[in-house]
Amino acid sequence: MRVEVVAVGTELLLGQIVDTNSSWIGEQLAMAGLDSFYQTKVGDNPERIRAVISQALDRSDAVICCGGLGPTQDDLTREVIADLLGVELVMDDAIAERIRNMFASRGREMPENNLRQAMVPVGCSPIPQQPGTAPGLVCPVGDPVTGKVIYAVPGVPYEMKEMVNGTILGDLIARSGEPAVIRSRVLRTWGTSESALAEILADRIDELDAIGNPTLAFLASGVEGLKVRITAKAVDEEGTAAIIAAEEKVLEPLIGHLVFAYDDDNMESVVVDLLRSRGLTLAVAESLSGGYITGRLAAVADSAEVLLGGVVAGQPAIAERLLGVADGAAVNEETAVAMADGVREAMGADIGIATVGVGGPGDLDGVPAGTSCLAVSAAGSGAVATTVRLPGDRERIRQFSAITLLDLLRRVLLDG
Amino acid sequence: MRVEVVAVGTELLLGQIVDTNSSWIGEQLAMAGLDSFYQTKVGDNPERIRAVISQALDRSDAVICCGGLGPTQDDLTREVIADLLGVELVMDDAIAERIRNMFASRGREMPENNLRQAMVPVGCSPIPQQPGTAPGLVCPVGDPVTGKVIYAVPGVPYEMKEMVNGTILGDLIARSGEPAVIRSRVLRTWGTSESALAEILADRIDELDAIGNPTLAFLASGVEGLKVRITAKAVDEEGTAAIIAAEEKVLEPLIGHLVFAYDDDNMESVVVDLLRSRGLTLAVAESLSGGYITGRLAAVADSAEVLLGGVVAGQPAIAERLLGVADGAAVNEETAVAMADGVREAMGADIGIATVGVGGPGDLDGVPAGTSCLAVSAAGSGAVATTVRLPGDRERIRQFSAITLLDLLRRVLLDG
Repeated sequence: MRVEVVAVGTELLLGQIVDTNSSWIGEQLAMAGLDSFYQTKVGDNPERIRAVISQALDRSDAVICCGGLGPTQDDLTREVIADLLGVELVMDDAIAERIRNMFASRGREMPENNLRQAMVPVGCSPIPQQPGTAPGLVCPVGDPVTGKVIYAVPGVPYEMKEMVNGTILGDLIARSGEPAVIRSRVLRTWGTSESALAEILADRIDELDAIGNPTLAFLASGVEGLKVRITAKAVDEEGTAAIIAAEEKVLEPLIGHLVFAYDDDNMESVVVDLLRSRGLTLAVAESLSGGYITGRLAAVADSAEVLLGGVVAGQPAIAERLLGVADGAAVNEETAVAMADGVREAMGADIGIATVGVGGPGDLDGVPAGTSCLAVSAAGSGAVATTVRLPGDRERIRQFSAITLLDLLRRVLLDG
Repeated sequence: MRVEVVAVGTELLLGQIVDTNSSWIGEQLAMAGLDSFYQTKVGDNPERIRAVISQALDRSDAVICCGGLGPTQDDLTREVIADLLGVELVMDDAIAERIRNMFASRGREMPENNLRQAMVPVGCSPIPQQPGTAPGLVCPVGDPVTGKVIYAVPGVPYEMKEMVNGTILGDLIARSGEPAVIRSRVLRTWGTSESALAEILADRIDELDAIGNPTLAFLASGVEGLKVRITAKAVDEEGTAAIIAAEEKVLEPLIGHLVFAYDDDNMESVVVDLLRSRGLTLAVAESLSGGYITGRLAAVADSAEVLLGGVVAGQPAIAERLLGVADGAAVNEETAVAMADGVREAMGADIGIATVGVGGPGDLDGVPAGTSCLAVSAAGSGAVATTVRLPGDRERIRQFSAITLLDLLRRVLLDG
């Protein structure tokens, strides 16, 4: 079963947006054991969109067409598919009603051109998931069961993902009838450099290269950690699970002490889970990271239960005023501990964490850019602190200080 | 002059790497006034690479082929181009020497397979810039001056960029014989929906479609606002500047009141600039947005001068404890104003801003998800507040509440 991805939008060709949709879809297809040999980007031009979809249908069994479903005149995917199939576009009253209701529920009037989104080519059906105003479409080409198929999804990533996960992948797997399964497991690590990790795993990668299954890959992902991905192929889920489990056993003595999470879990979700399981609450004080750490924690579902809140001190006087820090301007571990103590007490939390540092560019009072002092203060059991020198620009220093501080908290929680 | 981009690599199709190279090249081509209608990703398979390059040559004048120039057996671009041109690959002694020297200078022995990189198809010439071990290639198809051309560059971004900037763009412009320059200007807007904006601009877009130059395009970019891009083509910079200025005058009465920034400026940088120019300081209180707004403001260069800090209240008790808010649990404008007042006073700032709301998923005590109450409190001149109902998931609600609150602050600052 070959599946091809077509991304529609002049803004993609002009480099105004990087096409991450095709990459994400490609990954899902690979995980589902579906072959994907080409991905094409094309602008908002009906003849060229038609030519690209038509070629994709010639050489593949299914085409996922991303973008061009919005309400504006630039959005041409519906029209092109109808033209390609030689059918009319008709208004789908249920979709029209749903779009009207979406606007009504926000207390806004619907511009008439939004009804363009309710037009469906005859013989095609809307995708049930519809998080935005643009409905996705399943468009059979020829016989509805044995024939080929075009899927049309919006270019807005979260809308596209809901439709691919909710409808398209299942439909493709059902159509493919093939039992081959590819599965991956990501071990997320922190505490060493990418090149040191590569060196630790070099021999094992050579061995696996000779065998061919599973494979190991690396990815440095900023605040998401250094990812080590095991990918296995087998005839069924049990087969891939066994291969992945065996490989994890091989890797355990090599990198087990660095692994903090698996797959979609990240450092924040792991820390929130640990706090919850221990019945502890957290307060955060930030200067260097400007609210970034609190924001990452707050983005974890249900974190409100354990995250009491945070204080961002943009200026030293604020740390003194709100957190009782004697000298908020000094970049050292004493200041970090005083901030962690201070925010813990101010919010009545069990644990306080804090970071102070120099985000750069350039040194500050002789302290080099990238210097980050991190502290964890627990009620009753005192504080731990560490200083690290982080590489990169302001944004990377922010991300690295966040994951390093949260990893320190994780280790404190595991030891405590 | 039409130029097409082909990105080679199975890892691109599998989503292990996002193809940012094509996007970057697309942007450079657009800026150089070169048309680019298609971008294709293809895996490490010689037949398919050949088919894709061959098709690109049919429909375009030049093909930039990215990736597949490394030393391993997966790296097939050289072989495919030689095959396509019907010529042999021969060892280029100068390149071989250069690669040997690179290894020697790092004190490492050269693996023999690295010499594969010194093989050049007969009639093709290496690109002078060679920052890594992989040389790029200029491969004329037919007549060297009037015929078409394939460029091969490595997939490593900094190597590719040096070759595109150093050789390929100049060669393409020389071949095109066209002096055309393309320039864009982005008007960033906030305060209406994408479809309403489309409706406001529909007639003007129709007019411009008939003329063909400039063009108008839309892009909904979350916290970055709704972007309206004017793209103009002319023989020189002065020409594009005049066309863009004239179009801005046409758009002013239609959308001028919605425009908050231009090009790379965003809502945060505009607000920070306004505060600085008025000599005012800011403090932020967040519940719904969990530190996101403070983090965005802190990411603006030199924002520390005006941003005193922020308080994130993960739980209502924190708003009561730190900010003196009587009933922190109520999602309404009174609470938002009390938080804005409270954080302004706690930090000794000139202005306090605050957001409370329901991030979802699901309603909270009968208040629907997406409800966001926003307040701006200025010392001496009182507070303004508003309530909006925002669409999307938790992350989008966070982004929309951030830009909506900052836009409210911007308008207060402009009026004050």
